[in-house]
Amino acid sequence: MSIARRDVLKMLTAAPFVGLSGVPRLHQPGRTAAGFGPAPANVWRVFEEPFLSEIAFPLGGIGTGTVSLGGRGNLRDWEIANRPDKGRDLDNTFFALWCREQGAEARTMILESELAPPYRGAFGIPRGRLPGMPRFREGRFLGSYPFARLELSDPRVPLEVSLECFNPFIPGNDKDSGIPVAIFYWHLKNRSNSVVDATVMASLQNMAGVDTLGQNLNRFVDAGALRGLHMTTRKVPADHADFGSLALATVHTDITYTSRWDRGEWFDAQSLFWDDFSKDGRLETVAESDPSPENRTDVGSLGGLLRLAPGEVKTIPFVLSWYFPNRQNYWGEEIFGYDADRSGPIIGNYYQQHFDDAWDVARYTTENLARLERETRLFHDALFSTTAPPEILDAVSSQSSIIRTETCFRTKDGTFYAFEGTGDDHGCCPLNCTHVWNYEQTLAFLFPALERTMREVDFGHNTEDDGFMVFRSRIPLGTPKWDFPHAAADGQMGTVVKLYREWQLSGDFEFLTRLWPKAKAALEFAWRDSDPDRDGVMEGVQHNTYDIEFHGPNPMMGAIYLTALQCASEMARAVGDDSAGETYARLAEQGRGALDRETWNGEYYVQAFDRAQEEKYQVGAGCLSDQLLGQWMAHVAGLGHVLPEEHVKSAIHAVYRHNFKETLEDHANPQRIYALGDEGGLLLCSWPRGMRPLLPFVYSDEVWTGIEYQVAAHLIYEGYVDEGVRIVRAVRNRYDGQRRNPWNEVECGNHYARALASWSLLLALSGFHYSAPEKRMGFAPKSEEGRFVSFWSAEPGFGLYEQERTATTCEVTLKLLYGSGLELEAIDLPVVSAAVEVEVSLDGVKRAANALVENGKTRVQFDEAARLAAGSELQIHLRTAS
Amino acid sequence: MSIARRDVLKMLTAAPFVGLSGVPRLHQPGRTAAGFGPAPANVWRVFEEPFLSEIAFPLGGIGTGTVSLGGRGNLRDWEIANRPDKGRDLDNTFFALWCREQGAEARTMILESELAPPYRGAFGIPRGRLPGMPRFREGRFLGSYPFARLELSDPRVPLEVSLECFNPFIPGNDKDSGIPVAIFYWHLKNRSNSVVDATVMASLQNMAGVDTLGQNLNRFVDAGALRGLHMTTRKVPADHADFGSLALATVHTDITYTSRWDRGEWFDAQSLFWDDFSKDGRLETVAESDPSPENRTDVGSLGGLLRLAPGEVKTIPFVLSWYFPNRQNYWGEEIFGYDADRSGPIIGNYYQQHFDDAWDVARYTTENLARLERETRLFHDALFSTTAPPEILDAVSSQSSIIRTETCFRTKDGTFYAFEGTGDDHGCCPLNCTHVWNYEQTLAFLFPALERTMREVDFGHNTEDDGFMVFRSRIPLGTPKWDFPHAAADGQMGTVVKLYREWQLSGDFEFLTRLWPKAKAALEFAWRDSDPDRDGVMEGVQHNTYDIEFHGPNPMMGAIYLTALQCASEMARAVGDDSAGETYARLAEQGRGALDRETWNGEYYVQAFDRAQEEKYQVGAGCLSDQLLGQWMAHVAGLGHVLPEEHVKSAIHAVYRHNFKETLEDHANPQRIYALGDEGGLLLCSWPRGMRPLLPFVYSDEVWTGIEYQVAAHLIYEGYVDEGVRIVRAVRNRYDGQRRNPWNEVECGNHYARALASWSLLLALSGFHYSAPEKRMGFAPKSEEGRFVSFWSAEPGFGLYEQERTATTCEVTLKLLYGSGLELEAIDLPVVSAAVEVEVSLDGVKRAANALVENGKTRVQFDEAARLAAGSELQIHLRTAS
Repeated sequence: MSIARRDVLKMLTAAPFVGLSGVPRLHQPGRTAAGFGPAPANVWRVFEEPFLSEIAFPLGGIGTGTVSLGGRGNLRDWEIANRPDKGRDLDNTFFALWCREQGAEARTMILESELAPPYRGAFGIPRGRLPGMPRFREGRFLGSYPFARLELSDPRVPLEVSLECFNPFIPGNDKDSGIPVAIFYWHLKNRSNSVVDATVMASLQNMAGVDTLGQNLNRFVDAGALRGLHMTTRKVPADHADFGSLALATVHTDITYTSRWDRGEWFDAQSLFWDDFSKDGRLETVAESDPSPENRTDVGSLGGLLRLAPGEVKTIPFVLSWYFPNRQNYWGEEIFGYDADRSGPIIGNYYQQHFDDAWDVARYTTENLARLERETRLFHDALFSTTAPPEILDAVSSQSSIIRTETCFRTKDGTFYAFEGTGDDHGCCPLNCTHVWNYEQTLAFLFPALERTMREVDFGHNTEDDGFMVFRSRIPLGTPKWDFPHAAADGQMGTVVKLYREWQLSGDFEFLTRLWPKAKAALEFAWRDSDPDRDGVMEGVQHNTYDIEFHGPNPMMGAIYLTALQCASEMARAVGDDSAGETYARLAEQGRGALDRETWNGEYYVQAFDRAQEEKYQVGAGCLSDQLLGQWMAHVAGLGHVLPEEHVKSAIHAVYRHNFKETLEDHANPQRIYALGDEGGLLLCSWPRGMRPLLPFVYSDEVWTGIEYQVAAHLIYEGYVDEGVRIVRAVRNRYDGQRRNPWNEVECGNHYARALASWSLLLALSGFHYSAPEKRMGFAPKSEEGRFVSFWSAEPGFGLYEQERTATTCEVTLKLLYGSGLELEAIDLPVVSAAVEVEVSLDGVKRAANALVENGKTRVQFDEAARLAAGSELQIHLRTAS
Repeated sequence: MSIARRDVLKMLTAAPFVGLSGVPRLHQPGRTAAGFGPAPANVWRVFEEPFLSEIAFPLGGIGTGTVSLGGRGNLRDWEIANRPDKGRDLDNTFFALWCREQGAEARTMILESELAPPYRGAFGIPRGRLPGMPRFREGRFLGSYPFARLELSDPRVPLEVSLECFNPFIPGNDKDSGIPVAIFYWHLKNRSNSVVDATVMASLQNMAGVDTLGQNLNRFVDAGALRGLHMTTRKVPADHADFGSLALATVHTDITYTSRWDRGEWFDAQSLFWDDFSKDGRLETVAESDPSPENRTDVGSLGGLLRLAPGEVKTIPFVLSWYFPNRQNYWGEEIFGYDADRSGPIIGNYYQQHFDDAWDVARYTTENLARLERETRLFHDALFSTTAPPEILDAVSSQSSIIRTETCFRTKDGTFYAFEGTGDDHGCCPLNCTHVWNYEQTLAFLFPALERTMREVDFGHNTEDDGFMVFRSRIPLGTPKWDFPHAAADGQMGTVVKLYREWQLSGDFEFLTRLWPKAKAALEFAWRDSDPDRDGVMEGVQHNTYDIEFHGPNPMMGAIYLTALQCASEMARAVGDDSAGETYARLAEQGRGALDRETWNGEYYVQAFDRAQEEKYQVGAGCLSDQLLGQWMAHVAGLGHVLPEEHVKSAIHAVYRHNFKETLEDHANPQRIYALGDEGGLLLCSWPRGMRPLLPFVYSDEVWTGIEYQVAAHLIYEGYVDEGVRIVRAVRNRYDGQRRNPWNEVECGNHYARALASWSLLLALSGFHYSAPEKRMGFAPKSEEGRFVSFWSAEPGFGLYEQERTATTCEVTLKLLYGSGLELEAIDLPVVSAAVEVEVSLDGVKRAANALVENGKTRVQFDEAARLAAGSELQIHLRTAS
């Protein structure tokens, strides 16, 4: 029994991806979702006990904070008041069901699956959310960001119940992707042979005022299409950081409610609520709006009633909205720690430009719900129609949530700021850290306008005239800058590359010319600092994302520098600074050779520093996973190989071969622990040829998802698709709902920004590039014959690329699904053969074009620019010339 | 797969007792314990993944605090510095193994089984104890308080490893049961075919000074038979609450050690330690004793080396001791909450009378280890040779640990004090609460001298001249008493019963006569308070253990009052107050009839209070689990039935029938949660005939282990053995290592004292009674023909009762295993037949005796008192008179 039990558990542990082998391969078709038809294959990641406890699916918009849906259907981690707040549960806040099948006894249940062990607590398990009440025996959680789904069933209940919830997420539309709201659809299906009466009851504690309790006011509002509870505070002044409001509302018309529960002692409130609700599915209405007593807040409940014929399905929608306008800089000027400063400056929230209070948010959401949901599904369905392995869609979609967690925020003026990640109750570390955000691609491709505000801060505020860039921001802008002595070599050069990316994705020439002078200074700062001999290879003190300094020539800093030089060369030429452009290009060419000579060991690149054994925290002869970070950035930017292609291919495969472990059971890691035991992961470094320094760089034995994604995407770019997918699978198996939360990849903080490198997996699979200045888009799918589909996005909007290949033809459809319009003069496509014929039509109308095959791609040039509006389809048919 | 997985999990959940059905039944014979022969049946409770995470087995003595052994072998919850401190882990504190099979590579492992999910933490999982280092794939935890055992194996390791650890526990010897020490035996067995060299390394962080870090000093000491590290603080003054010391020592002679790890930055210390140890199983010795830098403490390591031939088994022992003499009243005068008062009075620890520092503790322990271990095993083996169902031995043994947790302590003068239980970081609630400690029996029977100090406080300090007893103590004694307006009706009467029990178990007549006047006043206080009409039935305001007041006649308070009257009657007569004795006896007789008339509903007893529906927090017509608490106390005290036997039997079975639920899935409990979902439990109350008040007493829907044990024991007393065992099984299945910690039953706090009612399960099974004043012992086993064995204990010592019955004979052996000596004039035994012949011998020498059968027992009267010394055996042979 001993061995068998262990084996069973191991099998269970790996369940969500069990059955997947071979790469790429799709999710198994979803099992039938409780009575509502089959869940689409490849879309939903499905979780059951014991994979529920760690799930916390964030519901909220960009810069609004989130409340999360737990794996059992519990609302958890109320991080809506402008602070990370893991573990903040709201007492007496849950959905509950009352139902009565005709002729049978009524039943009252909390709309969650049963609590799973352990049952900890010195005074019994925490009882804020009525853990002693009956719950559903069977529960499944399905995630497909930004949509979550919960399925509940129980032999004691004549209904099948499911919940769908989301927050609008529409790439390119940052306003509607930043609404402080969560939308819940409760679907009930009568699986009995009799009529069933039912009530779905939502209860919510008034947390306006956050921890300042007393004079909380719950008011019932019946306003046209919408009715429900508006929760405010009279105690906290309107300009205070804790000031806010919440709303709980529905468009359902047959309702029951109470503006507040009983205020008695002991457990009176819970007892009386439950007994009252259980009696007939209705509450004794308390309609008056008297503020709560000192040091107490109130709970309000709103229920929707309905009657279901046998087999009938009906839905009750709820909107939960919040409004905490006064985001505060509570961390002051601290960088590596913080003492909450309750008198810190108020920096506000962008959403206060659009809304007056939580009820206003609920009203706007409801009035626009059809459109918000349609556009969100348009994005979601397009993303998930990508023919990518399920692990990749899971990684890309789940981690895109990071930009909507408390890792990121928008000040009142709309500027987007971000920590690296968050501690459980504070951002960590402040702010816009250039080297961590080097890895991020999701925001850049989905919300390029927000990404550009980061460059405005980088170059507009944090770069000194001599080019020294402070790599962490203090806000409000104008606050004395951080006085760390080093520039971040990787962050500083990476930011030049990112400026190039933003310019390419947007074509915003004004933006480029405005920031260029500081970007130029930032690049040339290297000549003063780390490349004083100006040979195109960094060799000085190179502070970097490992929080230490490398010395001597090394591929990581070297390749970023080469990529930055190449980007800067193109930008310089674009703004008319041709001489600088030429200098940079020459230096890049020179550095490319020098770096390769100095750091290539015949298999991969190493640090060329002769004191690597004596000096603490170096790499030396090690095989660094990040060695080609700069090359990956170059691929994303569409620059091709900045180092010799055959060496790049050899090195990135060496990283996989030496650093990726299918199990870490034999790995001894005295550092921070993000993967362990029987889990797989990519080590940051290894020393396959020995010569490991006594104390190598401080994170060398760790496993970071951001670097795993970077390397996986790079492997795919270089054609090692299987290897890349294996790494991604290892990551996502670590985040399986039992081990860790699939919607929170942790590094130095929750929702860590480096994991936004995940977006590059899509880019690598599709080979998507877009140059707005040149009005050219390109795709180079890692796909042979057959059908390939990929989501794509850039400043003009988002859409789908669909390709059907045979040995001699390639049928391509480019769709713009949403956006302001896309103008293309050319499109780069795969090579079908050395000479091709091309046919082009836009929305069914033939267009003249020619096709030229060179540099490994087929460039289709339109005689006249093609202008796609949202909904347009551009069709291109390539065939071997006859 | 969905259903199957759930079923598998459910099966797993119940595993430790799976296979048990039918009652009573023994533990399945233990599986072979990793190579060291079979574990004795009925002794060890065995745990494997996923039943390990909640295990925290307390190691420590009475009044010393504890450190706990976790299910994986991790040391956790360092509650050694005079405070509850759940969750206090010591960084870098663990056992580790280095081993090298000849001709193979060396291997270094932490001596724990692998960490199980979840892997939480905003910055990776907490890394204090090197979670990134290799651990053993297979681990089993075996518990048999006061002994714990850990078995580790791994295909990568050529050794089988097991750990045995304990703290001396010798009933009647409070000094040696109160040593601040934990003893560890690491057993290694070479399962390879080659010689294996091995080192077992213990590492310990210096926590002298608790949270005050800096100037911590680790000194290596080599003192005769013992060598190791003595850890002190120079920063904290010797009279400060945080002052203390620790020692880590061994009698093993071939050792390696370092007095402190590297003090570098980042992860230098962990890296260098691990690499150094991994190289050759030895450490670079750092012998100097320089105090740690400000705000840092040091880690020291001590390893034992050995070489094992193929198949060979060897053991390395370690002693871990601590010494924090300055216990402080940190809770001040608070009762229901606390603000840690760092200037509160120092109340000291009893152990400081015997020891000078932690090294002195280690020295004493080592010098006496053979005896301490032998006597502890004598107790343990005797207890576990009791022929009781495994659930009962598990409950009785595991919960006896409560008296050695931070729930209890001894001030410097030796007085025993106790909270009800503990919060995670404070006792809760202070102190010597009479109504909670009503349920406790373990201390009274194992350490009667300590129990008597509680009566000294109850009557010597907390009882006013008019008999009003403050039911919670403030210390130091002399501190103004708590000014709560009510007496606790149950606590006050129960304390009179407990005084009787202490007198009976000890025969301490001086103690009785000294406390009697206040006990008499306390009893008669009822005539002023709750029984003003002096009819033997309480009907006034009756504050009680449910933290509310009952009104009107009710069985719970009524029966305790009757029992108290009966005890008081006997005590009054003993001290020569015959008139009072007669009054009390008459009142008891009168009350018995009146209570039965007023509260009997034909099936069970109810509250006779006509405003039970209107007044909050009453019972009314409910079936209260505690209704016969007083009757249970009377059984324990040997008083027989204080209410009509047939009604008692009916009522206690009604409690079982109505209140015990095999599953709580349909139970709605808005109150505190100690059992839920698919767990079984005994509800505090139910209303099987309706008339549940809108708001009954505040804990009515809860499940408390203390009451479950009280009711289970009472069921057994009344002959309902199966029912009693079923309740106990439900309790212990809730404490299965995955749901909750088997060595920490929680009510309003951890290690809650009410669970000490568990001892009465043994008393009920064996029917053990002892009257020291009358020099008489009695047994009435719930056992038919065949063999029955039971542990017994009282002031004179502890021993075994063994009985072998046939239809016509009963062979009895009474052994005194340990103690000061036992003098008996008579012994009460089961009835074999109406007329019996008896043969008696003491240590093989025949003694004259006669046997009289009456009142359902056989009283064997010795012509001359039998004097048993430790080791003596008294043999009695009863047979049907021919």
